[in-house]
Amino acid sequence: MNIFVVGLGLIGGSVCKALKKYTNHTVIGSDSDKNVETLAISEHSIDRISDENYADIDLVIICLYPQATEKLFLHIADKLSSKAVITDVCGIKGDFALRMHKIALEHNLNYVGIHPMAGKEVGGYLNSSADLFNNANFIITPFNDSKTYVIELLKNISYEIGAKKIVITTTSEHDKIIAYTSQLAHIVSSAYVKSPVLEKECGFSGGSFQDMTRIATMNETMWSSLFIQNRENLLNELDLLIDNLSQYRNALADSDEDKLSSLIKQGRLLKEKNIQNRIGQPN
Amino acid sequence: MNIFVVGLGLIGGSVCKALKKYTNHTVIGSDSDKNVETLAISEHSIDRISDENYADIDLVIICLYPQATEKLFLHIADKLSSKAVITDVCGIKGDFALRMHKIALEHNLNYVGIHPMAGKEVGGYLNSSADLFNNANFIITPFNDSKTYVIELLKNISYEIGAKKIVITTTSEHDKIIAYTSQLAHIVSSAYVKSPVLEKECGFSGGSFQDMTRIATMNETMWSSLFIQNRENLLNELDLLIDNLSQYRNALADSDEDKLSSLIKQGRLLKEKNIQNRIGQPN
Repeated sequence: MNIFVVGLGLIGGSVCKALKKYTNHTVIGSDSDKNVETLAISEHSIDRISDENYADIDLVIICLYPQATEKLFLHIADKLSSKAVITDVCGIKGDFALRMHKIALEHNLNYVGIHPMAGKEVGGYLNSSADLFNNANFIITPFNDSKTYVIELLKNISYEIGAKKIVITTTSEHDKIIAYTSQLAHIVSSAYVKSPVLEKECGFSGGSFQDMTRIATMNETMWSSLFIQNRENLLNELDLLIDNLSQYRNALADSDEDKLSSLIKQGRLLKEKNIQNRIGQPN
Repeated sequence: MNIFVVGLGLIGGSVCKALKKYTNHTVIGSDSDKNVETLAISEHSIDRISDENYADIDLVIICLYPQATEKLFLHIADKLSSKAVITDVCGIKGDFALRMHKIALEHNLNYVGIHPMAGKEVGGYLNSSADLFNNANFIITPFNDSKTYVIELLKNISYEIGAKKIVITTTSEHDKIIAYTSQLAHIVSSAYVKSPVLEKECGFSGGSFQDMTRIATMNETMWSSLFIQNRENLLNELDLLIDNLSQYRNALADSDEDKLSSLIKQGRLLKEKNIQNRIGQPN
């Protein structure tokens, strides 16, 4: 297949490198930064830079922020062959995916979104890696009228670049679960570093502190936009977490060790069940 | 040296295994569970089980919960030689360490606490490992009247079993910082798993969810006691975190993307500075 990857940042760059390492597909790349395009060519992460001739493209993987993804799709939609499949890797689907779906229908094209559950605390092409997706979960979010071959093609590509488990779900279920598994974690990490004691932690911490704060370096432009686009789901999760934290807080304020122990035990049992559910599953 | 390790759980078992793997000291062990003692002997994690003759012991490392640590120290204090150094590995120091210090002074003994910043999400001897402390931070909390040779002995032993960085601090500073770097992380992890979406996360998560929830399996008996004993410090950190989370929450509720972006940026800058401070440091 001729695969056109738009946006050679952490995810797009990793998609290209994985395609080149693990498949024989032809990889055409494009990035707004010409230096990145040149570097990608010189490192053989892509076969060629896009010449804006899209007629022979079989699959377009747009690896941009949601707004730029839509804009790009609108820009190239009438230049694509009707056989082309279009996907994106955005961290939210919801209304954004509906608008993408509408553009596709208007141009007799097939669009279905993907969300690879892989990332790093640092972004950009320079941090991309052919093995970023190894053993990762991939979520594919088709619509009721999506064609089976489109979903199969996206599954195959996902497996080829490293996916271990693929979940097929709706765009709204995706957003609801992602609010908890990913977005909430990013907010917690960001809030966690805002204690004056942070300056003294060096030498006083083990793995727990690192785990809590690893992703606090997230890019504020991308994530604030993702959060706003998933406002209702994320608000629910944040309110629930604050309420739960307040229960530990109040037990502690009351010096109620039994209550505190019982709250911790509830958490332990939930996590142990979660671990049982995940046995044999990736991540 | 003859080193007596009391309590062969995750930490005590790991101390024994590390001493046997990396040093030539004689390791005498004791555990309330006779099966664990037998297993430790058969695996050569200890040289012998304690016969309750403590006259030839040079160093006692008590690896029990704080209350049991005090009780054990009281029990053996008048059987120890005055050359013996006593330490513990409890996660809080504060008043507990002052009481231990008092027992030591009354028996003409030398006590100084240690806190190795290493652990696992699962406890017990079966999960202990000779390499648990490799590259870990160790905190040593002497008193104003602690003797230099005692601190030096504890530093040497810490390095011998794997410490990369050793911090010497007061018991109160230890408790203040630990409330943030360790205890708060445990509460967040425990609260994080209490969303109904937890049941659906399988296949929808990446590293962030795992990082957030890894330590939710903590033992409720030990941790609720540690939390209560560090009540003031931990309450301060919890209140601050809840307040910070509420700021993200309110920005989201107001659909204020600029405010959200600015909150995330503050976090990113703090974490980036934290990473800079840690370059070349363990953990």
